[in-house]
Amino acid sequence: MWSTIGEAGEFGLIARVTAQFPGTGDVILGPGDDAAIVTAPDNRVVATMDLLVEDRHFRRAWSSPEDVGRKAVAQNFADIAAMGARPTALLVGFAAPPDLPLSWADGLTEGLRAECARAGGAVVGGDTVAAETITVAITALGDLGGRPPVRRDGARPGDLIAVTGPLGLSGAGYALLEAGVLGPDDARRLVGDSAGGADPGWAACLREHRRPGPPYAEGPRAVRLGARAMLDVSDGLVQDLGHIARASGVAVDLDSAALVPDPALVEAAALLEQLGAARRAPVEHMLFGGEDHALAAAFPPGTDLPPQWRRIGTAAAPGPEGAVVTVDGAPARAGGWDHFG
Amino acid sequence: MWSTIGEAGEFGLIARVTAQFPGTGDVILGPGDDAAIVTAPDNRVVATMDLLVEDRHFRRAWSSPEDVGRKAVAQNFADIAAMGARPTALLVGFAAPPDLPLSWADGLTEGLRAECARAGGAVVGGDTVAAETITVAITALGDLGGRPPVRRDGARPGDLIAVTGPLGLSGAGYALLEAGVLGPDDARRLVGDSAGGADPGWAACLREHRRPGPPYAEGPRAVRLGARAMLDVSDGLVQDLGHIARASGVAVDLDSAALVPDPALVEAAALLEQLGAARRAPVEHMLFGGEDHALAAAFPPGTDLPPQWRRIGTAAAPGPEGAVVTVDGAPARAGGWDHFG
Repeated sequence: MWSTIGEAGEFGLIARVTAQFPGTGDVILGPGDDAAIVTAPDNRVVATMDLLVEDRHFRRAWSSPEDVGRKAVAQNFADIAAMGARPTALLVGFAAPPDLPLSWADGLTEGLRAECARAGGAVVGGDTVAAETITVAITALGDLGGRPPVRRDGARPGDLIAVTGPLGLSGAGYALLEAGVLGPDDARRLVGDSAGGADPGWAACLREHRRPGPPYAEGPRAVRLGARAMLDVSDGLVQDLGHIARASGVAVDLDSAALVPDPALVEAAALLEQLGAARRAPVEHMLFGGEDHALAAAFPPGTDLPPQWRRIGTAAAPGPEGAVVTVDGAPARAGGWDHFG
Repeated sequence: MWSTIGEAGEFGLIARVTAQFPGTGDVILGPGDDAAIVTAPDNRVVATMDLLVEDRHFRRAWSSPEDVGRKAVAQNFADIAAMGARPTALLVGFAAPPDLPLSWADGLTEGLRAECARAGGAVVGGDTVAAETITVAITALGDLGGRPPVRRDGARPGDLIAVTGPLGLSGAGYALLEAGVLGPDDARRLVGDSAGGADPGWAACLREHRRPGPPYAEGPRAVRLGARAMLDVSDGLVQDLGHIARASGVAVDLDSAALVPDPALVEAAALLEQLGAARRAPVEHMLFGGEDHALAAAFPPGTDLPPQWRRIGTAAAPGPEGAVVTVDGAPARAGGWDHFG
């Protein structure tokens, strides 16, 4: 049998991928024609695209191909959910060297399949090409189901600021990988038994970094709860809330007492300190860590939030500093990412 | 001012691109939020994706950035038209080295804008990332306007096979570029005055290769004319009609007398022979040349085709050879592309 994607060939590879996606109720026409056809019962379609480039957005040494596939789906469908929409379909562009093991492509496909199953979407089309570097391009589509979309510019003074999903774990996981900790074995080698055994609590940070699990259903639910602004936390909580603040013309003040770190994050921060990595308090990971793919939203004052949503702050009319994000009234240092910086 | 995309930065680059796409009647929400929102009045959305990788799908020495942008749009919206749909929107992923001149990115944007204007669509979103190699990922969306989609599997014995748009010019243009002829100056240097002066007829082949102009409106029109199968000619006429033949379970016989080469193609073939390049008769370019982005379709017998559509053959029940494509009853050698071959 084939051992590389070059041996499988373009059509062989496409056949292997499409066999994993028999379709859903939203797929009118799947892969194999000039284009796919997907339901859009709302008369509007929500669409977003991300590129993932090897050694920029993932490393083969740090993530399995399943991890890469899951994360590629998660970060795109999280954007769909952040508009208040339901994920329906994906298109996947895959550029890779012909000598890439076919098992890697199969793993990627399995990751796409698994996260599509969580989100309720399906791969309906795409493209495969040869290139020096692995690049995964994902376009995600979604349906608003008659709901108004939730943009970034609708927050008003007095609104509650709330989040759903983990904060800071992915960023701490990334810091662990950078420090050489790909798993418990590395940690024991580096710091001994204090690393926490076979399944230490901090390992959840590695898992969240490799396989974020956005709370997709909370996007449409937030609309029903009256959300006036919402986004996917991808560049860090402070930076992303800054987008809502500026677009809406409000200041956002976060309440540090409400930013309760997950125990896994506390353990990860302690391990990072043992390892001599850059010191960051758990709450700093929560404020500035990227790639959480939690959802953050502004709700009208008095909204009765379900337990999945944690209130973490309040929007206010901007003061002399303008539409900024503060923590307990003090400026939050702006971290974040510029992909060409 | 900035001279490279690295200096402009991710957000500066996005701002430059989005300024060129103020939107159309189909754009409900353009770039700048988690996702875009596009009209889908038909309740179904047609979607397709292509990746273009530098030195695989285009060369900076052969094509201007405007050319690359136009072609990227054209090949994707041609797929939308080939389903019988109207182009509505694009998402564009752009991976490039930070030291890429900003003028190149601006040229690409201008090419995207110009071809979107021809097709009636708009760029509504995308992603920009740093990478070693320029990669352009395009997702195109379209609307069926209440029409049934035209797939590849509906041709029946007796159907007319017809095409609209140029055949063979792009492939001949590619052969000229491979032979070192980027324009009239190169041709004069290589073969002297017989190359044909400042604007020789064969130059149309270079133009078609660099900037194909698919007949978008003919896709929906073909549906109204009753087309039962249709596709975009991207891999070569014989190979692509082979897809219709196999999917529909018919044999397709082309009539060589109906395959009348464009004068530009005749001139290009003569120049290629003068240059000592691989000999191909004009009709061979028409049968096997890729990237034409013409539309080919099967229509019921007796369909009164408008002049934009040329009848080139007939579908028949498959004989002992199966669902093959023949020319005047003889086997057509199968050319075409395998992207990992």
